[in-house]
Formats: sequence, C-alpha cells, structure tokens
Amino acid sequence: MSYERDNIRQMTAYQWGEQPETGDILKLNTNENPYPPSPAVQRALDTFTVDQLRRYPPPTADGLRHRLAELHEIRTDNIVITNGGDEALRLALTTFVAPGSAFGMLEPSYSLYPVLANIQDATIVRQALDESWDLPRDFAHQMNEAGANLCCIVNPHAPSGTLIDPDRIGQLASDLNGVLLVDEAYVDFVDPALRHDLVRLIDAFDNLLLLRTFSKGYSLAGLRLGYLLGAADLIDPILTKTRDSYNVNGISQRLGEAAIGDQAYAEETWRRVRTARRALRDRLLELGFGVGISQTNFLLAEVPLDAPKSAQEIYQALKEEGILVRYFSGSALEDKLRITVGTDRENERLTNALARLLGRL
Amino acid sequence: MSYERDNIRQMTAYQWGEQPETGDILKLNTNENPYPPSPAVQRALDTFTVDQLRRYPPPTADGLRHRLAELHEIRTDNIVITNGGDEALRLALTTFVAPGSAFGMLEPSYSLYPVLANIQDATIVRQALDESWDLPRDFAHQMNEAGANLCCIVNPHAPSGTLIDPDRIGQLASDLNGVLLVDEAYVDFVDPALRHDLVRLIDAFDNLLLLRTFSKGYSLAGLRLGYLLGAADLIDPILTKTRDSYNVNGISQRLGEAAIGDQAYAEETWRRVRTARRALRDRLLELGFGVGISQTNFLLAEVPLDAPKSAQEIYQALKEEGILVRYFSGSALEDKLRITVGTDRENERLTNALARLLGRL
Repeated sequence: MSYERDNIRQMTAYQWGEQPETGDILKLNTNENPYPPSPAVQRALDTFTVDQLRRYPPPTADGLRHRLAELHEIRTDNIVITNGGDEALRLALTTFVAPGSAFGMLEPSYSLYPVLANIQDATIVRQALDESWDLPRDFAHQMNEAGANLCCIVNPHAPSGTLIDPDRIGQLASDLNGVLLVDEAYVDFVDPALRHDLVRLIDAFDNLLLLRTFSKGYSLAGLRLGYLLGAADLIDPILTKTRDSYNVNGISQRLGEAAIGDQAYAEETWRRVRTARRALRDRLLELGFGVGISQTNFLLAEVPLDAPKSAQEIYQALKEEGILVRYFSGSALEDKLRITVGTDRENERLTNALARLLGRL
Repeated sequence: MSYERDNIRQMTAYQWGEQPETGDILKLNTNENPYPPSPAVQRALDTFTVDQLRRYPPPTADGLRHRLAELHEIRTDNIVITNGGDEALRLALTTFVAPGSAFGMLEPSYSLYPVLANIQDATIVRQALDESWDLPRDFAHQMNEAGANLCCIVNPHAPSGTLIDPDRIGQLASDLNGVLLVDEAYVDFVDPALRHDLVRLIDAFDNLLLLRTFSKGYSLAGLRLGYLLGAADLIDPILTKTRDSYNVNGISQRLGEAAIGDQAYAEETWRRVRTARRALRDRLLELGFGVGISQTNFLLAEVPLDAPKSAQEIYQALKEEGILVRYFSGSALEDKLRITVGTDRENERLTNALARLLGRL
C-alpha cells in the first residue's frame, strides 16, 4: 500500500545536478562560484563555538536581515531569510498558490519550478520564450487569463544567460494580477555597466518578490542561504506563518553576515567571473559553438551543426573524462550544453577537451 | 491588496518560545539540553574550511544517513535527514495530507502541529488526552472515521512528559488506516531501564514514521538537524520528491556525523538530565506543585491551589527576574508551567525564585 498523496505519487522528482563528493572532477554543472568564500567567512567560522548551537537560532535571523537592509537600502520588513533560494521558491508557492490553482512560468527555465508546483498540486501554466529567449508579448495577459496568482521568472535567465531590464520587469509587475517572483540567483554576475537594479522596484509594486542567494555570488552553495525581497505585506506571511520557525541555522546566519560584510571580496570574484566568461565565450565561438551574451556565471553553448557528436554525446564524453557540464533534454535545449564559468585554467581544460571531441585540435 | 491564500491569511502563526539573544537569562523555556555539544562536534567544526561550502552539499546527506543506519541498525533507505524536526513534520504533511483532507492529533501536544496543518489547508481532527495524559481508547477509530491519512503524536508526550510503550504504539499503528508519525523529540531522555525502543517497529508497520532530532539529545538546537525513520516506501517520496533538494547544509551534515559518533558523551548528558530531573521534581513537589513523572527533559508543574499567584502570573514574575519558562493558555494547561530541566545550579535558581513567589521561603 502506498500512502502518499496522488499528486506526489504521480509527479516526477527534481533531478539535481551531479554532486560528486570525491575525485578530481572538474565541476562546471551546477553554477557554483569558482572562487572560495571570503576570508571573513572563514574568520567567522573560526570564532564560532559549538556551545552557541545548544540553543535555538534567532528565529527570523534578524542580524542578517539588518545587514541586508543596509546593503540594499531597504527595511528589514522587506526581507525574509531562507534555507537556500529553493526554500524561498517553495515558500512563495505555499503562500500564494492554492492547490488546484494556476502557477505561471516560462519555458525553458529553472527545472525546479514545475516540481515545486506539482508538490503544491498547482496547475502549471507554461509559456515558451521566443527564439531569442525573450518574454512573449502576451505573457501577462495569458497568465491573468489563466488566473495565475504567482509567476516565477528567472532573470538573468537560466539557462540562456539573457537579461530583462528593470523597465520591462516593472511593466510586467504592473500588468500581472498576481505576484511576480523574479529569481535573481545570478544577478551578481550582471555587467555593472548596465546598472541593473530591481530592488528599487519593490516600493513601487506591491506584487513583486525578488529572490537572492548566497550560493553563487558569495560562493556559499553549501551553506544554504537565500532571501526574498519585497513589499512588507508580501514578506510578512512568509516570515511569520509559512516559513519553518527556525529555518536557518545559527552558523549559516553568522557566516552569511560575514559574507555580506565583505562586499569588496565578493565583487572581485564577480569581476573575475565576468572576465573569464568573456574569454570562455570567445574560445567556444572559435570552436564553432553558438553562444549568446550571458549575464550569469554560465554559458549556454549550442553544438555546431557539423559536429561529429550530439550535445548529449559530448556531455557524456566529457563526463567520462571527469568534466561535468549540464545537459537538458527538451526541444529548445537538446542541442546545447550549459557550462558554468570556471577559473581560466578550468575553462581551458574544458575547451581543450571540447576541441578534441569536435576534432578541432 | 493581499495576495496570500485564504487559509494563510486566516490562520494564526506559530508562537515560538522566546529566544533572547543577549543578557543573563536563565532559559528554561524551549527544552534545550543544558550541556554543550560533544567536543567531537567542536573538533569537526575546527577542521571545516569554508572552501568546502563553495559547492552544493551532498543532497541526501548520505554520510549522516550511513552513521544513523549503523546506530539504529536499520538501512539507509529507512532514513531521511531534515532541516530540524520541524521540517520533518512539515514534510509529512506535504507528502501524506492533501489540502482539505483530515490530519489527526491529540490535545494538548506540540503547538506547531495545527499550524502546519493550517498551512497545508488540512482539516484538523483533534482528540483530547484523558486526565492522566493518556490516549483516548477510541483514538484510532475516530481518526479512521474522519479519514485522517496522517496522525501525529508526540511520545514521550509534550508537555506532560508521559510515555506510551511500544506495544501500544504498535497497536495504534496497526489500527490506523493512515500514517502514524511518532514525534520522538524527547526520546533520548527516557529512563534506559524501560528499554523503550520504537525503531524495531518500523519493519513491522508500513505506516509508521518516527521523528528524531539533534536539538535536544545532542545539544544542537541551533544546527537544525532532524530525521525521520520508517519503511522505505514511506521515506522514499520525502527523500526524492517533497524535500528541498539541498535541505541540509554541509556544516550541519558534518557536525551531525560527529555528534552521532560520540554516543558516550551524549548518553552522559542524558544521564545527567535524568538525575537533575528527579531532583527538580522532588523540589517542586516540596514546594507544593503537582508534577508527574517525566520521561523528557522538562517537567509540567501544576501550580498549588493555594498559591498566591496564577501560573500565568508566576510565568510573568519569573520572566521579570530573567528566568524563562513556558506558559500555555488552554484549559488543561492554564494552571501549569512547562519547565526545561537545567543544570542543578540553574534548577536551584529557578526553585528559589518559585519559593519566593509562593511565599514559601
């Protein structure tokens, strides 16, 4: 006999990227930052004693919220801290999407969205991005027609790396009847020359949530730390009701504060990733891949039409020599590989392997 | 305009016990272990470098699952690790209780249960414990009649500290049509002479889940680490589908392994808590409180009928002098205080204050 709910039994589980725990693996598959966390984070860890773990952690992580309020020049009641960005996404579903009602998303995007919607037993309303990975013009209209009370979009976009500017995000928030969650997991890697900033929009739109994470920009994927920014009325039910009371452990709170306190270090890693991103893209273009401009820490590389191997075969061949990249099936992606930007040396090992696999050496 | 779901808007939030972050507070309100975690946990922390946080943690925390499988003499597929026991409870609701369907619980018990049920928009079916805090005879029948697909009971019971033996738990699992989750948050403090062990039941009952936590027994409330034990078919949908993919951070996994690896230390803290529990109960009885036998790390103390203050007034007066205990409103509890067992010295500070407040000094 099986006891789980019908929707849980029928759903397909999320497939996380491979996380090998040992070995000389070049890991360019789950968009980690190639540089270690700030030395300030190590110092915070060094001064932490386990006796501090005897008690429950601060339930709403107010120390970290204060730091983030200062950083973003907003109020603490615009912020809720989560156990990774994934929890923030789940909590948005829990809080705003009733089972049976509609949840809106674009395709392709983060493959966790439909999984979370299935867990919530929501109806998934999908619209495809156009050929240049841009929003369909009638997105808001279609979502409103379907009655979606929450739409998630990832911006900069995954897996393409493209960016929608603040004016268009504002227009979208204005046009949507429900909540717009903009998943900014990769926003730290946007070219600063663009002066891209959605935080300024949260005062103007009572239905806009921004998701941030420490996983990429602060090199802390292993710490599970994320947060949502939004109008206090959007944040409050998550902060006080739907979130597990002690969702973020004491060490993560402390290390998160240390990471936020060393912006100069984080920004330097972002700069280095952007520089490596340019060089990697150039090299991939030389090898015949189709690669758009990316504002993230990964590139989506389309395998040359004349390549002797398919994207899936290349993914597999790379894996066999200890290089992990991400391959997604699905019509718009089946001829492409998503490659995390590594250090120059890592990127060179990858492109050398690709050159060999394509017979271009 | 308010965007949250109707059930979220209407529900009452969980009230966590006060967690003062500073000051000379005697904290006997949230059942933390009075002793620090094992030195082995500190050593594990000391050897952790933040570079290990750059990558995602092992998604299913298999290192810790292996340790726990050895400890409990079960298989890893009988175990799922969670971000504290609270997450385990939430995941049981998410996995087994469809919105609108019935969730069963006893009253009084852990006040989080109805909150989680409200978040899931489940119908809460409550039955009152009898006057000796025992299960009503027709509990299973009533729950089956109501169609409850999940019932949660806490054993040893909170806030009374009473224990239901394995035979009766087995009978209950056998009688229930749905899943029985036994919240064993306090099981480490049960008198070993009782040879109480529910783990042996999970092979016999395909509908039995046991919840364990590191918060109390391993002095790691601040780490957020818990787990569920059960038949592989019950564990699997939680492990692979409803759980956030990286729900437990890398440091917590490592420190949890270290804590489990030093059973001798943990058992010594349990022994000391039991000894202090006996002494504290004796002293409270001397002061005229009604106090039953407790198998947990807290005591439920009924204020003497002739006391000059009510339980709520005593709670407040203690708080004013920097001693936190827990007061719950509600008919069966309004004349009682739940007091966490502290060190002998802490317990003495508490009982001296109580003697003064009752005019028995």
